[in-house]
Amino acid sequence: MTVEALELSINLVWVMLGAFLVFFMHTGFAMVEAGFTRSKNAVNILMKNFITISLGGIVYFFAGYAIMFGDSVNGMIGFSGFALRGVEDIAFFVFQAMFVATCATIISGAVAERTNIFAYIAMVIVMTLFIYPIVGHWVWQGDGWLTSLGFIDFAGSTVVHLTGAVAAFVAAAMIGPRIGKYTGRRVNVIPGHSIPLGALGVFILWLGWFGFNGASTLAADPASVPGVIANTFLAASAGVFMTAMYTKFRYGYMDGSLTLNGALAGLVSITAGAANLSMIGALVAGTIAAPILVEGVRFIDSKLRIDDPVGAVTVHGFCGIWGTLAVGLLDKANGLFYSGSATLLAVQAIGIVAVIAWTSIAIFISLSIIKLFIPLRVPREEEIAGLDTIEHGANAYEFQDSFKGVQRSGSFAERLTTLGNQQTSNSELRKA
Amino acid sequence: MTVEALELSINLVWVMLGAFLVFFMHTGFAMVEAGFTRSKNAVNILMKNFITISLGGIVYFFAGYAIMFGDSVNGMIGFSGFALRGVEDIAFFVFQAMFVATCATIISGAVAERTNIFAYIAMVIVMTLFIYPIVGHWVWQGDGWLTSLGFIDFAGSTVVHLTGAVAAFVAAAMIGPRIGKYTGRRVNVIPGHSIPLGALGVFILWLGWFGFNGASTLAADPASVPGVIANTFLAASAGVFMTAMYTKFRYGYMDGSLTLNGALAGLVSITAGAANLSMIGALVAGTIAAPILVEGVRFIDSKLRIDDPVGAVTVHGFCGIWGTLAVGLLDKANGLFYSGSATLLAVQAIGIVAVIAWTSIAIFISLSIIKLFIPLRVPREEEIAGLDTIEHGANAYEFQDSFKGVQRSGSFAERLTTLGNQQTSNSELRKA
Amino acid sequence: MTVEALELSINLVWVMLGAFLVFFMHTGFAMVEAGFTRSKNAVNILMKNFITISLGGIVYFFAGYAIMFGDSVNGMIGFSGFALRGVEDIAFFVFQAMFVATCATIISGAVAERTNIFAYIAMVIVMTLFIYPIVGHWVWQGDGWLTSLGFIDFAGSTVVHLTGAVAAFVAAAMIGPRIGKYTGRRVNVIPGHSIPLGALGVFILWLGWFGFNGASTLAADPASVPGVIANTFLAASAGVFMTAMYTKFRYGYMDGSLTLNGALAGLVSITAGAANLSMIGALVAGTIAAPILVEGVRFIDSKLRIDDPVGAVTVHGFCGIWGTLAVGLLDKANGLFYSGSATLLAVQAIGIVAVIAWTSIAIFISLSIIKLFIPLRVPREEEIAGLDTIEHGANAYEFQDSFKGVQRSGSFAERLTTLGNQQTSNSELRKA
Repeated sequence: MTVEALELSINLVWVMLGAFLVFFMHTGFAMVEAGFTRSKNAVNILMKNFITISLGGIVYFFAGYAIMFGDSVNGMIGFSGFALRGVEDIAFFVFQAMFVATCATIISGAVAERTNIFAYIAMVIVMTLFIYPIVGHWVWQGDGWLTSLGFIDFAGSTVVHLTGAVAAFVAAAMIGPRIGKYTGRRVNVIPGHSIPLGALGVFILWLGWFGFNGASTLAADPASVPGVIANTFLAASAGVFMTAMYTKFRYGYMDGSLTLNGALAGLVSITAGAANLSMIGALVAGTIAAPILVEGVRFIDSKLRIDDPVGAVTVHGFCGIWGTLAVGLLDKANGLFYSGSATLLAVQAIGIVAVIAWTSIAIFISLSIIKLFIPLRVPREEEIAGLDTIEHGANAYEFQDSFKGVQRSGSFAERLTTLGNQQTSNSELRKA
Repeated sequence: MTVEALELSINLVWVMLGAFLVFFMHTGFAMVEAGFTRSKNAVNILMKNFITISLGGIVYFFAGYAIMFGDSVNGMIGFSGFALRGVEDIAFFVFQAMFVATCATIISGAVAERTNIFAYIAMVIVMTLFIYPIVGHWVWQGDGWLTSLGFIDFAGSTVVHLTGAVAAFVAAAMIGPRIGKYTGRRVNVIPGHSIPLGALGVFILWLGWFGFNGASTLAADPASVPGVIANTFLAASAGVFMTAMYTKFRYGYMDGSLTLNGALAGLVSITAGAANLSMIGALVAGTIAAPILVEGVRFIDSKLRIDDPVGAVTVHGFCGIWGTLAVGLLDKANGLFYSGSATLLAVQAIGIVAVIAWTSIAIFISLSIIKLFIPLRVPREEEIAGLDTIEHGANAYEFQDSFKGVQRSGSFAERLTTLGNQQTSNSELRKA
Repeated sequence: MTVEALELSINLVWVMLGAFLVFFMHTGFAMVEAGFTRSKNAVNILMKNFITISLGGIVYFFAGYAIMFGDSVNGMIGFSGFALRGVEDIAFFVFQAMFVATCATIISGAVAERTNIFAYIAMVIVMTLFIYPIVGHWVWQGDGWLTSLGFIDFAGSTVVHLTGAVAAFVAAAMIGPRIGKYTGRRVNVIPGHSIPLGALGVFILWLGWFGFNGASTLAADPASVPGVIANTFLAASAGVFMTAMYTKFRYGYMDGSLTLNGALAGLVSITAGAANLSMIGALVAGTIAAPILVEGVRFIDSKLRIDDPVGAVTVHGFCGIWGTLAVGLLDKANGLFYSGSATLLAVQAIGIVAVIAWTSIAIFISLSIIKLFIPLRVPREEEIAGLDTIEHGANAYEFQDSFKGVQRSGSFAERLTTLGNQQTSNSELRKA
């Protein structure tokens, strides 16, 4: 055993730990999205989250990874290593596969409670096959054109979060709001069904982010990892506390859902600069994320009248932009406030604009094609009844009266849930 | 500090990370089993899960580990190192102790909602004391007879999952179905009470499985770990996506509970061969797990009429068999499809048969003895009322009307829940 | 790359893994406290937990760390390194920052369902700014006076848990019981709203404790880590199983909430001695924790009539004392039962008394000052209505009728929840 071999081992453990934590983020997304939507659609949103990580991983294995990290064609797109042919660093693939699904799953929350699951599956495919991989190629493959410009996005405020949010925004706009969200000029509130589930999800996402940012170093380097983790922790902390205070003084109460989202806003805001900002810079990034979140959610919801049930566009998009620009302002070497030069800030802005342009056009065209074959929305009756019973044969919850030991009567699920039994009883009925 | 000492350190961190993740699987099992059963029995199933890992660990410490990894008596059973006397690798014990409880806890789901908790405790003892340790000795101690034959079970499709499932099957059959499950020829559906809880549990199990398979390498080896993790990820992904598709086209809706179980089916199917299959092989293993799961659940539930509330027998048993045979077919060196030789496949089949024979006989005799002393089932009235209030002094849920601030009236738990207070009020009553 | 550099890397990974796990404990605390209190206050307790880790981390960054680990002033208090100026080991700061919030969050459970959130915020500040850091300085900075005496508290039975519990006790006493808890001489039971949430939280805490104790070695040392983890596992296991048995034979049923707390009781009891006790010693520590827990909860609740909704004072305080004394009895080198000398036991007792004295006086004075500016309790009407809707603009749960697709009518949250929309409808109303 040599020192060099041991170094590989230790970096392997670090990257694997990171991959596991980013995988766990999908649990977090699933819980947040389920908690922040209605119980009648909870099974559906959970299924979409399971399918995102599953199908996303498979698509990325066969082609997405090749397009992202394959040999570069003019810095625009990769094109080698399909099905990992010739790829040696499988650990790196695993870590990246967890990321790709993170980007795709951002959409699921924004289009929740109304989207046809096959249309959603098609979106997952286009996102993980080329929309996200191409952005990733520009920034992280090494030969990408944004890398050449000097664009800095350490763990993906733009690559992952902004890309996902732009796609989410376009999809939410094209699919339209949930029935009952906007009546005339009125903006109605549709509260989610479980804040504890949402809180669980946010905590899990925060935990997962330590791997998301921390293992983006790709090495267990004592010179960089501790600062990355401290920055991640402090920015999230500032996001939580400042959102709590901001909503209290702006609205008179410390808003529950927004404060939870404040953690995510802080995290997205430090993702680009986790390795480049000072700890004070991280606190600044998280602090400014709070008003961006609160006002952004209001702007999207009430001014643009785009129905984004979980606030995904604001959290991942507006804060993704802020996090990317924050590097231009607060990078310890080349940030405007340190160097006096706006060059890096301009490069950061170019990257943002390019990613918005590419993603919005690509997802718009993709969805326009998809909807030729698959309706984007579920039927009106199904949306009103809830997607769960019709699409998935189950209610999310079945509470019984403990003392009588009976099921809630009239449950659709009771007739439908478990496979096979339905057939049994049907044939019995025929005999009867 | 030497390179050799560092190598010990890095492998320690890897195995500890694995142990923590496998420990976390017990959280996953607890959530899945609670979610997939009725709310009136939720406290009971949670208690059983807590007791499994706790008591299982203690029994394994005192004797199970010695029977599994002690000096071999003719390749059949170990017999040294009780209470870890003379055992040097405590980290290995910790990792293995998490495994033993995994095997035992499979039973808890299959016999849920009707089993006397002391009968269940007795089952945990026999499973962790000798039934599982003896199987483990055959395959993993090094001198076991199945090891000598060349049987391959990397992380336990057979050792852990099939063993647990066979015991679960025999126990479920002996204990009988829940009241109301089978009425005449009719097979009734008894839906679980919370799919979000189940989904959380499945995600946690999937996460835990990265440690279950990954750390079964016992070393942070860059030559084996990444492939193991990628295989684990891809097989689970295929399990989820293919189950979603299979149920959609077979039944007309994408079944929620089965798709969740699809992840577990894929994971069990790659557990034996995680280090031996290619990534394409892993996708094949997970893909085939999907129809096995769906048809297996139906077969057990409707044909054999064994009441297994969470589908544990199918997930861990049928998929455990499939995963073990998949090594015989798809092992990159000696699998039938690679080598043209059926030798390994035959050895795998011998192992499966031996484990089924041993486990079924051992658990049957054990339960036959246990039931001389402890009734296997709770009384009929208790089953109908729910096990929670009577066995554990609490309802799983107590939702209040937020506006009146009152408890739901007439709650049994209100009179019973907290220790001591009952006595206080009783003495007050006597005075009054 | 040198061997020395690699050693830094591997220890970094171990400490970071520990920090992530201790961070995750805050998820566990949040779930336990939410589950064990009423649903009308669930958002509030979740918010308090989020604010504890967030604000606690920020305060510790700016000043708490300096007071704990700065250059010692007579072994009593640290005073250098504010805002980490001059601090080199950022990884150590991150790990310690997770601990500080653990101590502070113990209070949140004990004062749940009635405490003004700004008063709570003030408590978090005093705890993380100086009350806990000063105790930590005495024991863990190296030059502290308790260190000089030979006091042993490996991972914080006293430093973290007893300190938190004493503060929790004083705060609960000063704030007073929840409305309806004590009516005349009667002690009423106020059951929590979700045992599954509580069980999830306990499992997560147990998992997190492997990092809490394990990484307190600060190095991935094969000579110490495996024993620490095995002890942590076995003590918790004994706590669970023995509490289940003890409540069964004492009260006739296996109490659900207490058995869950039994895991935590076992864990607190091994925290001081995880590196110093044998595995049998760990089992003894966990076993004795069970009756301490059950009788302690009863004593606090019915005899002292202090309303501690989650049993925090008993779990963290009584078991913290027991865990600290257990080192004096069972330390493999200097414990009374091994060495025959009571010297270590006496030192342990001195540490306990000192920490109780300091913490109780400091929190009493702090709260006396705080309440001059902020009322400690919410108004009576708000407590009865539940804190969630008024303080946080949301109900924790909103279950819809799946078939009608309508919200529960009359929901306060429906009018209040999402920011901005309220204003919109208000202005519409004005127009109408």
